[in-house]
Amino acid sequence: MMRLSVILICFSTVIFAEEFEYLYSTKYIDVPLDHFNFRSNATFKLRYLINDTYHVQRGPIFFYTGNEGDINQFAQNTGFMYDIASTFNALLVFAEHRYYGTSLPFGNLSYTTPEYLGYLSSAQALADFAYLIDDLQSTYAATSDLKKVPVIAFGGSYGGMLAAYLRMKYPYAVAGAVASSAPIWQFRGLTPCENFNRIVTNVYEALGGVKCKDTIAKSWKIIRSLTETDEGKSNLTKLWNFCTPLKTSDDIDTLVDWLTNIYVNVAMVNYPYPTSFLADLPAYPVRAVCSKINNFDYKNDFGLLQALGEALSVYTNYTGRTTCNDIKVAANIGEKGWDFQSCTDMIMPMCSTSFDMFEDEPWDFDKYSDDCYKKFSVRPRNEQVPLLEYGGKDIKSASDIVFSNGLMDPWSSGGVLSNVSDRISAVIIPDAAHHFDLRGANANDPGSVREARRFHVKRIHKWLNKFYFENLDDPLKYKFYETNRV
Amino acid sequence: MMRLSVILICFSTVIFAEEFEYLYSTKYIDVPLDHFNFRSNATFKLRYLINDTYHVQRGPIFFYTGNEGDINQFAQNTGFMYDIASTFNALLVFAEHRYYGTSLPFGNLSYTTPEYLGYLSSAQALADFAYLIDDLQSTYAATSDLKKVPVIAFGGSYGGMLAAYLRMKYPYAVAGAVASSAPIWQFRGLTPCENFNRIVTNVYEALGGVKCKDTIAKSWKIIRSLTETDEGKSNLTKLWNFCTPLKTSDDIDTLVDWLTNIYVNVAMVNYPYPTSFLADLPAYPVRAVCSKINNFDYKNDFGLLQALGEALSVYTNYTGRTTCNDIKVAANIGEKGWDFQSCTDMIMPMCSTSFDMFEDEPWDFDKYSDDCYKKFSVRPRNEQVPLLEYGGKDIKSASDIVFSNGLMDPWSSGGVLSNVSDRISAVIIPDAAHHFDLRGANANDPGSVREARRFHVKRIHKWLNKFYFENLDDPLKYKFYETNRV
Repeated sequence: MMRLSVILICFSTVIFAEEFEYLYSTKYIDVPLDHFNFRSNATFKLRYLINDTYHVQRGPIFFYTGNEGDINQFAQNTGFMYDIASTFNALLVFAEHRYYGTSLPFGNLSYTTPEYLGYLSSAQALADFAYLIDDLQSTYAATSDLKKVPVIAFGGSYGGMLAAYLRMKYPYAVAGAVASSAPIWQFRGLTPCENFNRIVTNVYEALGGVKCKDTIAKSWKIIRSLTETDEGKSNLTKLWNFCTPLKTSDDIDTLVDWLTNIYVNVAMVNYPYPTSFLADLPAYPVRAVCSKINNFDYKNDFGLLQALGEALSVYTNYTGRTTCNDIKVAANIGEKGWDFQSCTDMIMPMCSTSFDMFEDEPWDFDKYSDDCYKKFSVRPRNEQVPLLEYGGKDIKSASDIVFSNGLMDPWSSGGVLSNVSDRISAVIIPDAAHHFDLRGANANDPGSVREARRFHVKRIHKWLNKFYFENLDDPLKYKFYETNRV
Repeated sequence: MMRLSVILICFSTVIFAEEFEYLYSTKYIDVPLDHFNFRSNATFKLRYLINDTYHVQRGPIFFYTGNEGDINQFAQNTGFMYDIASTFNALLVFAEHRYYGTSLPFGNLSYTTPEYLGYLSSAQALADFAYLIDDLQSTYAATSDLKKVPVIAFGGSYGGMLAAYLRMKYPYAVAGAVASSAPIWQFRGLTPCENFNRIVTNVYEALGGVKCKDTIAKSWKIIRSLTETDEGKSNLTKLWNFCTPLKTSDDIDTLVDWLTNIYVNVAMVNYPYPTSFLADLPAYPVRAVCSKINNFDYKNDFGLLQALGEALSVYTNYTGRTTCNDIKVAANIGEKGWDFQSCTDMIMPMCSTSFDMFEDEPWDFDKYSDDCYKKFSVRPRNEQVPLLEYGGKDIKSASDIVFSNGLMDPWSSGGVLSNVSDRISAVIIPDAAHHFDLRGANANDPGSVREARRFHVKRIHKWLNKFYFENLDDPLKYKFYETNRV
């Protein structure tokens, strides 16, 4: 069974609002295909979004380190950067990650073979970002009294990991990093593999009630049992309105992945107002999903599945426009690129046990490796890659990073939850889902999220003051700058 | 004219002593060919040398980050690590740099095409070292109370750059770095291109006298003028005992490079006792070369060339066993690998002006690029590569590095000559040549070099104490350790 999709930090099913809420223009820069070898000087066009509405000369660059998806969706869901841009006179830049969106080094061939796909790695993406920042410096730092302007990296989820890594590996390129919901410790030996699913389970129990969690927990055996027969497969196809009839046992595995992803995604985006990030969803979607289950007085196994069907429609058909459910699309919810990265430099061991509301699933690296090979003709080199490249828990030599995590976010399992040093801080947001603090301000935001954003602003202010003090030729100019900001 | 060779930090003409002075055993580790892409999982055998004579359990690893050459020669010329190993109970490891010595990823084909040669880069070499260190940890850190042992990086010249870069890019892999004569600022915009040759000139004038410097300075026009005719070429061939007759104007360019390299090399290894590092040489070779010139009472241009011929033999034939001089071997003195690196990630602009004792030579990046293309079918991507990858002068976010430089070393031109922070220190050794402080103790060592080594020992002690205090489970064990070391 292919369970790669479970470990996605994924955003590809985003449904864009008809009109973009946040504005920017789109640009491209030629970046080297391969920053670390010199076999050729090939380049490709990396896309980035830019907004100079709030920017004044000498102002900082707020730089979003793009994740595994179309950069537009991250720009549309990172309103925090827009909200604080005028306070800091900042230029806003959102850089796309190579191999996602339109930043495809080999166009339509990019995903066809390891030969083409193999240049997809976090290390190359970081080098792209450093390259772009250097280019932006030559455009925006052309004043006689300031050789370069400060750059602050922002990112959420995998993008948050990249923001932190950018500061760790290229500290001269960015003066600080706000890394929201960045699971930099979701790697071998750093975090028990069951923690992620344990948190999902806890979220459902805490926010949706015991019945909701227990119903989901019980459902797997019922689904497996029912679908052992062709008739059962046919009945479930009808009940849950699948576009294609369930036929094989592989289909059932796919169905289980699809369901698992939905439960996880709903927990990740459990925001207190309707959003369109992973899907069109109501406010507090965990509560909405669970209330369907809790309100359904089912008497038997089929009734339980009916209740779940109702609940799933919160995720699959909130708009009422979905005609049928395609488990293959949803089970392969993430970009194929992230699946590849999960097989190479982002190998995040995941498992579930009988304490969770999911099917039992041990972490089996050999099987995982076989699955990777089937899918990409590439095997994980070893599970050590992320530790070798990013150092695991030993990050105390880095500086000027804020790691924020919502405790209702499954990905907090791999997050930095306590201060590492006086220059690497952890912000805990007890009632927040996945990178909630990076979203634009909303009347329904809980106090804890507002508090986290205030912390970010204070920290950014500190980083910028330090930068200007060290880099402006004339200390008086620095004083002027100091009194006029924030 | 191909002047790549001028910028070599080069060691390939080393003549090994009949027997090695410093002992070790030779090992190999399979390392990934490409740490940053995932196009294949190919590996190759990286060579390293290891000595556990002084090692006790929990003791640190002293790790030499190999330069552009056979690792044996660096182990034989870094006696400092041996001298202090017992004090620290250290394991000694000397890691070879990929594409040098026997660490050839594609065997005899490694240098044939950019396809094969292109995996030669400092970034890949650093990742090799981090990979090897991780492997050593699994062998040598298997005690219940200490998860990993501290590793201290050592390196001289380009190897010193790598030691510093290893601490900058992989701070979790090494607790500190001693970077001797590491010209990390010998890059575009950081150091004027003429500084290197200016220092060589100053060394000859200061140590060899004005007549010596002026004779060399005057010689270029005389050589050019004499060799305009076939008769002149033939006369010079005889006078300086070349293996192959000078024939073309390209040959004269090669000759000029050969001479330039000799003068530079003699300055680099101007140690106060006989050595066999770049060539078999007497003590104080600058003085030896110049005394031949100063004692030769030449009356005309040909006499000047006779004087130079005598002087050159100090370098080319100190042993008396050289039958003729091959300018092609010597002009291409460095490994071909370093020439390639000089065209890719180690582009170090060099020039000379009328103030120097060398032929005038401006820095011309376009011509340089053309030369690279002719030689390797690869052009420098741009002059920015080292700045993008290693940050130029902005290294203050790094920590626990000592940069030492001898002021009589031409490479001090690109060195860190003043403290960057309280955790990045500069050690100046007024009367030392190239990475003198890394050599084994010798009765003729000047006080300044002994002083520098004492500084290193103190700093290493500090780094180790910090590491053990932070990493040993039991503080009492730390106290025990503390009182029993150094």
